Order: sequence, then C-alpha cells, then structure tokens
Amino acid sequence: MIDLQGERSPQGMALARVGVSDLSYPIRVQAAPNVVQATIGRFEMAVRLQADERGTHMSRFVEFVHGSSAPYAADTVGTRLKQLAERLGSQRAFLDVSFPLFFPRKAPVSGAEGLLDVSCRLRGEIQEGNACVTMIVRVPVTSLCPCSKAISDYGAHNQRGYVTIETELATADTALHFAELVVLAEGAGSSPVYPLLKRPDERFVTMAAYDKPMFVEDMARHVAKALASDARVGRYRVHAENLESIHSHSAFAEAASE
Amino acid sequence: MIDLQGERSPQGMALARVGVSDLSYPIRVQAAPNVVQATIGRFEMAVRLQADERGTHMSRFVEFVHGSSAPYAADTVGTRLKQLAERLGSQRAFLDVSFPLFFPRKAPVSGAEGLLDVSCRLRGEIQEGNACVTMIVRVPVTSLCPCSKAISDYGAHNQRGYVTIETELATADTALHFAELVVLAEGAGSSPVYPLLKRPDERFVTMAAYDKPMFVEDMARHVAKALASDARVGRYRVHAENLESIHSHSAFAEAASE
Amino acid sequence: MIDLQGERSPQGMALARVGVSDLSYPIRVQAAPNVVQATIGRFEMAVRLQADERGTHMSRFVEFVHGSSAPYAADTVGTRLKQLAERLGSQRAFLDVSFPLFFPRKAPVSGAEGLLDVSCRLRGEIQEGNACVTMIVRVPVTSLCPCSKAISDYGAHNQRGYVTIETELATADTALHFAELVVLAEGAGSSPVYPLLKRPDERFVTMAAYDKPMFVEDMARHVAKALASDARVGRYRVHAENLESIHSHSAFAEAASE
Amino acid sequence: MIDLQGERSPQGMALARVGVSDLSYPIRVQAAPNVVQATIGRFEMAVRLQADERGTHMSRFVEFVHGSSAPYAADTVGTRLKQLAERLGSQRAFLDVSFPLFFPRKAPVSGAEGLLDVSCRLRGEIQEGNACVTMIVRVPVTSLCPCSKAISDYGAHNQRGYVTIETELATADTALHFAELVVLAEGAGSSPVYPLLKRPDERFVTMAAYDKPMFVEDMARHVAKALASDARVGRYRVHAENLESIHSHSAFAEAASE
Repeated sequence: MIDLQGERSPQGMALARVGVSDLSYPIRVQAAPNVVQATIGRFEMAVRLQADERGTHMSRFVEFVHGSSAPYAADTVGTRLKQLAERLGSQRAFLDVSFPLFFPRKAPVSGAEGLLDVSCRLRGEIQEGNACVTMIVRVPVTSLCPCSKAISDYGAHNQRGYVTIETELATADTALHFAELVVLAEGAGSSPVYPLLKRPDERFVTMAAYDKPMFVEDMARHVAKALASDARVGRYRVHAENLESIHSHSAFAEAASE
Repeated sequence: MIDLQGERSPQGMALARVGVSDLSYPIRVQAAPNVVQATIGRFEMAVRLQADERGTHMSRFVEFVHGSSAPYAADTVGTRLKQLAERLGSQRAFLDVSFPLFFPRKAPVSGAEGLLDVSCRLRGEIQEGNACVTMIVRVPVTSLCPCSKAISDYGAHNQRGYVTIETELATADTALHFAELVVLAEGAGSSPVYPLLKRPDERFVTMAAYDKPMFVEDMARHVAKALASDARVGRYRVHAENLESIHSHSAFAEAASE
Repeated sequence: MIDLQGERSPQGMALARVGVSDLSYPIRVQAAPNVVQATIGRFEMAVRLQADERGTHMSRFVEFVHGSSAPYAADTVGTRLKQLAERLGSQRAFLDVSFPLFFPRKAPVSGAEGLLDVSCRLRGEIQEGNACVTMIVRVPVTSLCPCSKAISDYGAHNQRGYVTIETELATADTALHFAELVVLAEGAGSSPVYPLLKRPDERFVTMAAYDKPMFVEDMARHVAKALASDARVGRYRVHAENLESIHSHSAFAEAASE
Repeated sequence: MIDLQGERSPQGMALARVGVSDLSYPIRVQAAPNVVQATIGRFEMAVRLQADERGTHMSRFVEFVHGSSAPYAADTVGTRLKQLAERLGSQRAFLDVSFPLFFPRKAPVSGAEGLLDVSCRLRGEIQEGNACVTMIVRVPVTSLCPCSKAISDYGAHNQRGYVTIETELATADTALHFAELVVLAEGAGSSPVYPLLKRPDERFVTMAAYDKPMFVEDMARHVAKALASDARVGRYRVHAENLESIHSHSAFAEAASE
C-alpha cells in the first residue's frame, strides 16, 4: 500500500512540530512520593519533521499512549520522550499532558475531610538526547485585598484566585512532586480554599483571610522567592490571578526567572 | 440536480428540530428603549421536520440571518420566527441567539465611567402562528455571605456571583428591555460589580457589600419576587450562583414560576 | 454558633433548586455489565427549599460525594437520590454528574486497539420517593453527506459528528448500560470513528463511509427508532450534529419521544 | 486615603507582568485597507513592575481601553503601547486583544454571499520604546487526506481544519492587514469553507477538495513559504490542525521561522 507520509517532501522545509492534540486517555500519575492516582490525561504530542520528509505517522502517537501503563511523573518524562523520538524516528520530541489531581484536605477546625481539585500538567521536550521537563499546577486560593481592608472602616473584598506555578526541573531526573508545588501555591493566598467547611471552619477561614491580606503581586512574589531558592528548580514562571469580586474581569501578576 | 433533502423520507418519523448551530454573525441589538448596539451573535436555528420529509435546506438558515439587518429585540422575535417558518416551509420554528451587551456604569463615588459586560440571549419558538419569546441575561454581582459575617469577629467572605434571569414575555410583543433585567439582577447582590473603580469607590463598595449580606437563596428570591409582580413577565426562572471564594466549586439557587 | 441558613425565611417563597455546582471529584462508574472505570465526575446537586427555610446546608452535598465509594450506575441513582433528600431534609433532590468513559475499540482490519473517549452523564431527580433517572452519552462518529455524494462526479464531503443520546430509564432500576448506548450511537453514522487506525484500516473506513452516506436527519431517526422499540427506555431525545467540513458552523437534527 | 499599591515593596523582586485579563469591551478594528468593523475585544494588558514597587494601579488599564475610540490595527499598536507604558509609569507594557472579524465570501458557483467568521488577535509589547507587534488569525478550511485518497478505491476522508497564522510585523508600522492573512490561510487547505453554499456550490467544493488533497504538514508549509518571502513579515509561526473525521482527536503541524 502506498505510503505518502513516507515520501520525500518536495517542499524542502523542516517543520518544528508535527503530531496529535486533543487526545484524551485514562492515565495514572505520581502525585506525591507514595501516591499514584488514576486520572484522565489530555495529550498533545509531536516530533520535529525533517525538510525531506512529507509527513509523520500519526497513529504511532496514539500507540505510544495506549502502550504505556506506568504512572506519569516528572522524573520519568525524559525516558518517555526518548522512546517517543525513537518510535517516530526524529531527533526532537514533545509531550504535553494535562490532568486533574485530587489532594486530601482537612478543614482547619472540624477536621472534616474532602478532596481539593487541582489542574496539573507535565510538559517535556527532548533534543538530541537532552530532555527538559516542566511541571505545572493551577491551585485555587482565597485572596483578600490589602487596599480594600486599609481604606475601609470595616470589611474587605476578597475572592477566589488561582496561583499557577510552572517550573522546569533543574535536571530531567529531579524528584519534585506535584503535592509540593500545590502546598507552596496554597500558602501564597490569604487562605487556602477547602473542599469542605463546617461553620466553625468558615469562621476560622474568614478571619484568617482578613488577617493576611495579599495582592496578586504579593502572591506571585511569595511563590517566586521559594522557587528561586530551591536547587531542584530550573527556570520558573508564577502567575497569580484574582477573579475580582468587585469587577467582572481578573487582575494578575507574573514573576519569572531570568 | 438531485435534491435528496426534498425526497420523501422512508423512515416515517417526524423530527422535533432540524437546523444549524454555532453560527456566529455580527448583529445589532436593542439594549434599551433608544439604544441599539453592534455585537456578535451566536445562533442556533431550527424547524420541525415532517415524518415524510427526508431533510431540511440548511443554507436557508444562513440566508435568513445574512438577509436581516434590523436590530434584534424581544418584541420582534415573533415576526422573525414567522418568516423563518415560512422560508423553511414548516409549522414550527426555533431561534436562539446569544450575544454580549455593554451597559455604561458610573463608579459610586468618583463617577468614573466604564462599560459593564453582560451575556444576553433571545430564544423564541413559534407553533402554528403562536410565538413564545424568552429573554435571558447573566449579570455579574458581588455577594457577601451572611453566615460568614454573623459567625466571625471581623471580616466576611465574599465573591463574584452571577444572577441569571430567564423570562418569557407575557405576550410576544411585550416591550421588555435587556437594560431593565440587568438593573434588576444588579440589585440582587450585596453590591453591583463595576467595570472601573478608583480607591474611594472601592471603599464605598467594600462597605456597601458588608452592609448587605446575601445568600444565593436570598438573591434568587429577591429577583423572583420582582418578576412575579411584573405583568409583562410570563414564566420565569432565576439562577443565582456564587464562585465561592472559600471553595473551588460554586453554590447556587434557582427560583421558578409556578 | 448562629445558624442563619436554618432560620425561618422572611421571604415566603419556595426555591426549585438550591445546591452546589462545578464540583469535581474522582469517582468510579459502571460502564458495562462487568466493567467499572475510574474517572473524574463534574457534579451539580440540589434540593428543593421550602418557603419557610432561608437556606440549605451546602457542605452536606460535598460530604455526600466524598462519603460514597460505590460505583455510579444508572440503576443505583434512585437510591443515591433518596439518601441525598434525607440528608438535606427535603422532599425533592437532584443529581447531575458528567464524566468521560473510555471504551476499547479495535481497528477494522489490523485489529490495533485503542480507547474511544465518550462524554457521559447521569442525571436524576427524586420527588416524594419517586425517582426519574436519565443517561446521556455523546459519541463521535464519521458522517458522509448523501447530497454531496449524489451531485458530485467524485468525492463527497464528510466530517466528524456527534450523536448524543439522552434517555430516561423506564423504571429507576432498569439495567441499561452506557456501553450499549455508545454502540447504538456509533451505528448511526456513516462509520464509527476509531482511536487508532493503520493504513489498511484507513482505506476500509474511507470506503465504508462512502458506502453509507447519512444526513444528520438520518442519524437522529436511526437512533430514535431503536430507542422507541426498547422496553427499558422511557422518554428520550437524540441529537445528531455535524461539524460541517465545508462550513464553520454545525448542522443538527433532534428526535424526541412523544 | 492610603495608597498601598504605591508603597515601596519590601520584597525586592521585579515582576515580569502585572495587569488585568478577561476584560471584554466593544471595539472597532481595521480589518482591511478601507474596512473598519465593530466587534468585541477580549483584553489582557500588563506592565513590568519594578522591584521596589508593591503594586500597580489596575483601574488605569480599564480607563485606557475605555478612553480609546480609534480603530485597532497592527500598525497603531506601537503607539498604544507607548501610551500604556506612560500611563502606568513603566518601561515595559503588554497588550493582547482577541476578537472575531467577519469577511464577506461568495459561493463559488451561485455567488450567494455570507460572512466568514475568523478569530483574530493583536498582541504587542514595548520595551524602552521599541515595540514588537504580532497579528494572529485562525481560519477554518476544508482538508482532504492525500493518504486516504491514494489508498482507497473511492472516496477520501476530509474534515474541517484550522490554519492559524501568527506573524510579527517586520517593523512596528508595517501595513499588513488581517484580510490578507485570512486569504493566505484559506488558500492552504483543500478548499476554503464558506458561510453559505447552494447545491451547485456544494458539488463544486466537493470536487475541488478531492482534486487538491493536503496533509496538515502540506498546509503548514504552504503558508510558511509565503510568509518567508514577504518582506513585511518578521518572525512567524503557522499551525495547521485537522478535526480528524475518522478520529476524535486532532492532527497538527507547525512551521516556524528560523
């Protein structure tokens, strides 16, 4: 049967990335040192295409995901990328997978337990054998506005915010866990949010947030400082966003390594 | 040229609705008595298909939108539906169009002006000449939790919420305007949200919200009472939702006529 | 501690639904007779609120989801609803949960296996002890246009489409499985879509679709006929939609019982 | 009144970007040399924040959008950025605005006219007076698979695809119009898509697509070659994506300058 993708390309131009996207698959992910979770991954995978190749073999990307039952973890993405590059016959390969993880959280007074839903993502790239891996978490927090508190006789506007941490591993086999990044992000707000709060907890959280007002700028800096002093972290970007309760738009701040 | 859609259907089953969806088109909308706005509509349109018709003529729906330059308004949807039913040769026709409208709002102290973004929608159905038209607005507000205020020594959690009003017109040519529904929804929260606030405004809004704590249940009831006593309103549904600042899920309440 | 939600309501209006939405939680679902899958559910839950109750206890909805480890299945939703109504002290309760399920599919010639991603949903309502349960699947298919084939000398436009089946169970404990509804929907298109196809499979699928052209109207009727003759099915609605390859909007058809 | 944002920051870390996002506003855009369209913009705006500044003044971003009635165009973004940087007192400013534009298209045989909906975006950055501006269009096309055509006795799978062109202007005042980029993208598929097609047009488009099979790789290269030889274009990225009709995931290819 004819193999057009395998044809010599008449166009003589390399392509940076060729692959599949919007592929959903059930996967398992290493969320913390001894915790593996079943979740659903949304995949984008690609390889570089040489100038003289007309196309890639798209079905091999799906086979690659289907054939792998090992848990996804930041420190094994390098190995996966090497296999993907080999399977597709390319010098360069890309893997990007997004998935929710759930972290048990106890309410601060009652101790009532629930699961906190966090959007997570692993992104990696290999080029001639050198892998670069990025971990991303997007964590909900409560933020209370310092300006509103300072200028008002009583009250202070607050809202749900999201702290997004995007961090490269210093080396492709560094042991950094999603659970650690989530805790770091939760500490950046005026208070963590909780899946489940009883009335005494609600009282606690209300006053805790009032006692710790934070601008988006403060939140981004708080996380960035911690990342900057962690030897396991390479380049990073921190994005703090407030779904402003007094506006219908958001306010945000970003800190990045340089 | 063969016309398969016009064929007799061998399947002998009427179809409730056949048409097009996800069609975007620039339109003009009557937002208030003397205010017509240019905006972008997202359309779904359909007709009923008889048991002996195999298919409808999809291109006529697009022609119908393309050929109409008059502003969209609740009290002219009936006429549009009659034309759509005729054009498609059906006894029953449906029109559903969603679009943002922008309402000028002044900050409460400084008077600084900006535009409030509101998701709006017109939905109508005609059956043997009788049209039923529904107007929908989804309006952002601030809500402050009465429970949190009552049980805490200071502070109170608050957040952005959305009040959605869905109301049928008592008769197809009733003059009810989006601008009126928006004002009604804004009054249901602890405070309206504003596109633009300077510091003295922020102080005002912070304290105003603290002075008027509202549950989602209170917000839904507030709006429902007003609708129930408005003779221009037929059946209605009110949905109030809080993007809880202390959780990553929402709380909601719905009031409905009958 | 004060319990404002438990207060008598001064507003004297019952609320149709009060609860939580946008709550994500890991769950297990009965996909087929002997198949239970781990997946992620997106929940909306609510109860009716009496005229003299000011508010409901939102945290109990989260406790309800957190405390349940049994697999979700259509025929056990009734029992869950009864428990939810009791826990919240209401005569009427609502549960709506959406989640992806994955079904193994073999390519038609090579037999290469992959997992087909299907959006599924369970929705139920109980009123004074009587539960009504609805199952929903949204299944991707290939559809090839009969008109395009008939009027062209060669070729025929085709595209990805989605067949959505929404069906009430005839009785709350009927044994109807998501896997059955998915197979029914897949048979409605010009061809099923596959997670993984090698070149001989692609040839097979291309010709199979050309041999079985289907309008959205045909697809909706095909499924509706099967549902109408299945004693386990109560009321139903079938929605067939094509992401038209020759337009940037969609075409759709809906068949409904009655 | 206290100005906390204006405080010296105790944290001593510059922030790459601080501003507002998810702000919707009605705007006018220069779509082609003599064509200005009313549309709805979705804004993200930011400035760099010095290490010794605690916060920025978020309300000024909204004032900036509210106060500007001139049409948005690629060659005036530089001027806007300069004003934004000055207004916020920063050396560096960012503007990113997304909006739909509508381009009139005639069906190829009947000449029936409709409007093609295209997602567009302007993104700019200024640093010490030097602006860099990027234009983005995402254009729907039809693509027919060369492999499917070559290996099948009849038929060929095809689908809706999207060609996204992202191009920097060679200089900040280059006159490059969205309309030109849209035409370039439309030419990359097997056929353009049309808002409105009558039966003779559908026959034409069906056969035209069959006569010009294109992989995503071919589409990306086609556009990239044209951009590479256009002196007005600086760095660029082309993304071609197919909503595969035989899968429920997408295939994509990206070409980039350098």
